[in-house]
Amino acid sequence: MKQRPMSHSRTISTKLVLPPDTNHMQTIFGGKVLAYIDEIAAITAMKHAQTAVVTASIDSVDFVSSATVGDVLELEAVVSSTGRTSMEIFVSVHSTDLETGAKKLTTESFLTFVAMDEDNKPVEIAGVYGETEAEKRLIETGPARREHRKLRREMKH
Amino acid sequence: MKQRPMSHSRTISTKLVLPPDTNHMQTIFGGKVLAYIDEIAAITAMKHAQTAVVTASIDSVDFVSSATVGDVLELEAVVSSTGRTSMEIFVSVHSTDLETGAKKLTTESFLTFVAMDEDNKPVEIAGVYGETEAEKRLIETGPARREHRKLRREMKH
Amino acid sequence: MKQRPMSHSRTISTKLVLPPDTNHMQTIFGGKVLAYIDEIAAITAMKHAQTAVVTASIDSVDFVSSATVGDVLELEAVVSSTGRTSMEIFVSVHSTDLETGAKKLTTESFLTFVAMDEDNKPVEIAGVYGETEAEKRLIETGPARREHRKLRREMKH
Amino acid sequence: MKQRPMSHSRTISTKLVLPPDTNHMQTIFGGKVLAYIDEIAAITAMKHAQTAVVTASIDSVDFVSSATVGDVLELEAVVSSTGRTSMEIFVSVHSTDLETGAKKLTTESFLTFVAMDEDNKPVEIAGVYGETEAEKRLIETGPARREHRKLRREMKH
Amino acid sequence: MKQRPMSHSRTISTKLVLPPDTNHMQTIFGGKVLAYIDEIAAITAMKHAQTAVVTASIDSVDFVSSATVGDVLELEAVVSSTGRTSMEIFVSVHSTDLETGAKKLTTESFLTFVAMDEDNKPVEIAGVYGETEAEKRLIETGPARREHRKLRREMKH
Amino acid sequence: MKQRPMSHSRTISTKLVLPPDTNHMQTIFGGKVLAYIDEIAAITAMKHAQTAVVTASIDSVDFVSSATVGDVLELEAVVSSTGRTSMEIFVSVHSTDLETGAKKLTTESFLTFVAMDEDNKPVEIAGVYGETEAEKRLIETGPARREHRKLRREMKH
Ligand SMILES: CC(C)(COP(=O)(O)OP(=O)(O)OC[C@H]1O[C@@H](n2cnc3c(N)ncnc32)[C@H](O)[C@@H]1OP(=O)(O)O)[C@@H](O)C(=O)NCCC(=O)NCCS
Ligand SMILES: CC(C)(COP(=O)(O)OP(=O)(O)OC[C@H]1O[C@@H](n2cnc3c(N)ncnc32)[C@H](O)[C@@H]1OP(=O)(O)O)[C@@H](O)C(=O)NCCC(=O)NCCS
Ligand SMILES: CC(C)(COP(=O)(O)OP(=O)(O)OC[C@H]1O[C@@H](n2cnc3c(N)ncnc32)[C@H](O)[C@@H]1OP(=O)(O)O)[C@@H](O)C(=O)NCCC(=O)NCCS
Ligand SMILES: CC(C)(COP(=O)(O)OP(=O)(O)OC[C@H]1O[C@@H](n2cnc3c(N)ncnc32)[C@H](O)[C@@H]1OP(=O)(O)O)[C@@H](O)C(=O)NCCC(=O)NCCS
Repeated sequence: MKQRPMSHSRTISTKLVLPPDTNHMQTIFGGKVLAYIDEIAAITAMKHAQTAVVTASIDSVDFVSSATVGDVLELEAVVSSTGRTSMEIFVSVHSTDLETGAKKLTTESFLTFVAMDEDNKPVEIAGVYGETEAEKRLIETGPARREHRKLRREMKH
Repeated sequence: MKQRPMSHSRTISTKLVLPPDTNHMQTIFGGKVLAYIDEIAAITAMKHAQTAVVTASIDSVDFVSSATVGDVLELEAVVSSTGRTSMEIFVSVHSTDLETGAKKLTTESFLTFVAMDEDNKPVEIAGVYGETEAEKRLIETGPARREHRKLRREMKH
Repeated sequence: MKQRPMSHSRTISTKLVLPPDTNHMQTIFGGKVLAYIDEIAAITAMKHAQTAVVTASIDSVDFVSSATVGDVLELEAVVSSTGRTSMEIFVSVHSTDLETGAKKLTTESFLTFVAMDEDNKPVEIAGVYGETEAEKRLIETGPARREHRKLRREMKH
Repeated sequence: MKQRPMSHSRTISTKLVLPPDTNHMQTIFGGKVLAYIDEIAAITAMKHAQTAVVTASIDSVDFVSSATVGDVLELEAVVSSTGRTSMEIFVSVHSTDLETGAKKLTTESFLTFVAMDEDNKPVEIAGVYGETEAEKRLIETGPARREHRKLRREMKH
Repeated sequence: MKQRPMSHSRTISTKLVLPPDTNHMQTIFGGKVLAYIDEIAAITAMKHAQTAVVTASIDSVDFVSSATVGDVLELEAVVSSTGRTSMEIFVSVHSTDLETGAKKLTTESFLTFVAMDEDNKPVEIAGVYGETEAEKRLIETGPARREHRKLRREMKH
Repeated sequence: MKQRPMSHSRTISTKLVLPPDTNHMQTIFGGKVLAYIDEIAAITAMKHAQTAVVTASIDSVDFVSSATVGDVLELEAVVSSTGRTSMEIFVSVHSTDLETGAKKLTTESFLTFVAMDEDNKPVEIAGVYGETEAEKRLIETGPARREHRKLRREMKH
């Protein structure tokens, strides 16, 4: 099976928090952050798989701090593990208050995407390997997260 | 503490899947569905709490079927459990293919919102009670879900 | 001719009034409300006809009260009468101030949609019947509204 | 009372019909056209009144032809009559197929706007006068339309 | 070669500056104005060429005054010169403060569009001629601007 | 005067080209690319200046290749030179076809932003210095570009 380095699909994106993304206390909607997370994760998955992809699941997301109008959100996403047709993507989101320069973690999240062929059927993808210590650790812990996810799905039924 | 029936804040919303919400295979983006889930859940939480609210977390979401351009999404949300300042909201999403009338579950999700006062501080909310058997069961299983969520957050650290 | 109950296509939708939908007095634009009315009416018409539809007309609309940022709009739509290829849809819009819980009528409206086949030609649709007294009355008064509409169109020419 | 010529507030706007404005037959949504009509009418009313305005009503609208992706919509709006605090605005919408150059009427519409002061109370506005024969005729027939509208509102009650 | 008068494709458009188009000082984003300029210029180019078009370049743009929420932007665009497959479009943008009626120049800009056939290849277009003195002058100075633009492109390489 | 390294405000952003951003040949609108350029440049300028900013000008932009639905746009922006209250920002845009992995330059652009205080008056900013050879060269050529821009503005008058 073909292998691609994690760096091949690493993706960064930067967003300015604007009034329409916020409630009347000028705090960004959780749903807007989730939409940004899904968007960058989908780009990362497509870069890795070089096919169309669909979101299969998103693991639980805790919003540990908020962002307000005028803040900047920085998102970073990598392929953190691969299956046969599915990829796990790790996304971190930080917000920066531009006037003070203070930067805080907003949330971290794991999503699973499935690669699709032209007939909308799951299709095999390349594997992923890490080049740094941190990248390697992220990949090694993938199977445990995968197992945990399976248990969670079974519990629901 | 004041108590409000679950029916007080039950919310229904219906959306048509349009081209800008979809990828080039005309399948709706997961992030769009998450944004819809957060929006209806926030409305439900605000109806219950009668204050502004922020999203604290969203439990893991599995997309069990997809929706394509021209389908209709039906979302339903209720307050499924309350804490002192936080509410758990249960959202279900179904999609309907209008030409065949076939209706499928897209996803189900639990989110937690926190009620905020004017100074952006958490504020006490009313409790919730069920009037039907199904509503009562949903509320009774709330503390277990709450416990599970706490464990999950501790595991991450 | 096939007949479908009014309840088959009844549609409810809930919207939060957000800053981009409002003028600088934070009052929702009439055009935004009209767009919401057309959207829910089109979904209702498509559910009934199980084909694509186009808006043929919208009867006069009076905005009897306004809605502001943070309010919730609740829309409800039913098929209130059917012709050979056209359907009349009745939409009511209420706004709720979440902090006081006060609910007011914003507007009521009748629209006509025409069912279209794949070649963009009007196509026959099922009839509609009511199951409750209110539903039956709404259907019985349909031909009078239809007649009135025809007169109005002729007057314009 | 101050008087302003109709030409003072005459407004023209041109829109390209884009995929997100259309259904899956690539026909523009009626609700999108209604939103454009309200937007240009509001600008015209604000230019005339030099205050904020709200939409009080829109008279019945018939969509006599459709527009599809790639067509251009041309909207034109004038103040066609004034009351004490309210203005009637006449809007015409034409669509042009850019490849053939063919231009068709989409719809014509009368709307009423009310001028609002800073406390959100109706406020007196300037009158309007015509400079051409067509403009004068449009203004002369205003009171009849106003009367008709009042009757319609009473009938509904 | 076919010739069309400049008046054939002259296009006017009017926009209300809304909160989502502005930063937190309520000043419109330069990028929003640039998007409006490109949109009206593309419509003008399509009206002239009666084919699809792509933006080849936009000359330097100076924003000489700003516009804030509630102001009205008026854009006007004409074909100011033609080549074999390319057209130069001149766009002017003015803003009006509706409460005072004061009108200011926001910016002026020249853009070049290329006409494209169905296979996405540049295709020949009609020439343009002026009917008034101002129109003729704008066309006569076209070749000099074209020459300047070519030099600028070469300089960059 | 305070000095900040160019790396302090360097910003990267990644966008997926979606149907609503494109014409009916599925090519992205130039205006959309210009809006993305202004957005990332404004973020970069705000990070450097730690105040609000407005776009003063954008130098001529040539679109040397196009991007279509499903492509990914990668934007990168740095502060390339500073004046007293104004900053020059350099933005490069590349597009990647995800299926082939082929990456092309779309356009490069210089913009000038002015830092604004709370009263909307230009305010002094920190200087910028380079840490790598490429960064230093970009800063050294700044005054020449500034001079050229001034000449261009005078020529227009
Ligand atoms: C609506 C439309 C299809 C009617 O076309 P037509 O040639 O008049 O078709 P027909 O005479 O066969 O009429 C079809 C049905 O529409 C009804 N109808 C036509 N115009 C109508 C109007 N203005 N208001 C209400 N009903 C109307 C007819 O009564 C008839 O109803 P029935 O079959 O139930 O008896 C046509 O005018 C159209 O395409 N309009 C544009 C629709 C559109 O695109 N709207 C979105 C915004 S532009
Ligand atoms: C329109 C509105 C201000 C009228 O309030 P009101 O208490 O009836 O005010 P008044 O009786 O003083 O009437 C003010 C003017 O509006 C006119 N008016 C009121 N309702 C109207 C209607 N449905 N259609 C046309 N004109 C109307 C009156 O004739 C009067 O005109 P005049 O001063 O020129 O003689 C009020 O109904 C309202 O706020 N509606 C909501 C407006 C809105 O927010 N629209 C956006 C979408 S919800
Ligand atoms: C514009 C484009 C079609 C030119 O392609 P090309 O291979 O250089 O084509 P040609 O050499 O045949 O030139 C065609 C015309 O474009 C003109 N042209 C090319 N580049 C230009 C530029 N940067 N500025 C102005 N005119 C330009 C040529 O002068 C020629 O004009 P003419 O026929 O009137 O003499 C090509 O560069 C392109 O596709 N760019 C991307 C356009 C786009 O998608 N824009 C949206 C945002 S990315
Ligand atoms: C940009 C603007 C603030 C400049 O105002 P001004 O009265 O000329 O201010 P100053 O003469 O004090 O110049 C301030 C700085 O801007 C620079 N500047 C002014 N116009 C410029 C232009 N067109 N291009 C590049 N730099 C420009 C000056 O060189 C000066 O730079 P420095 O302090 O580094 O030496 C003013 O023209 C404006 O508000 N324009 C509208 C900006 C806007 O709202 N843009 C969004 C879309 S409309």
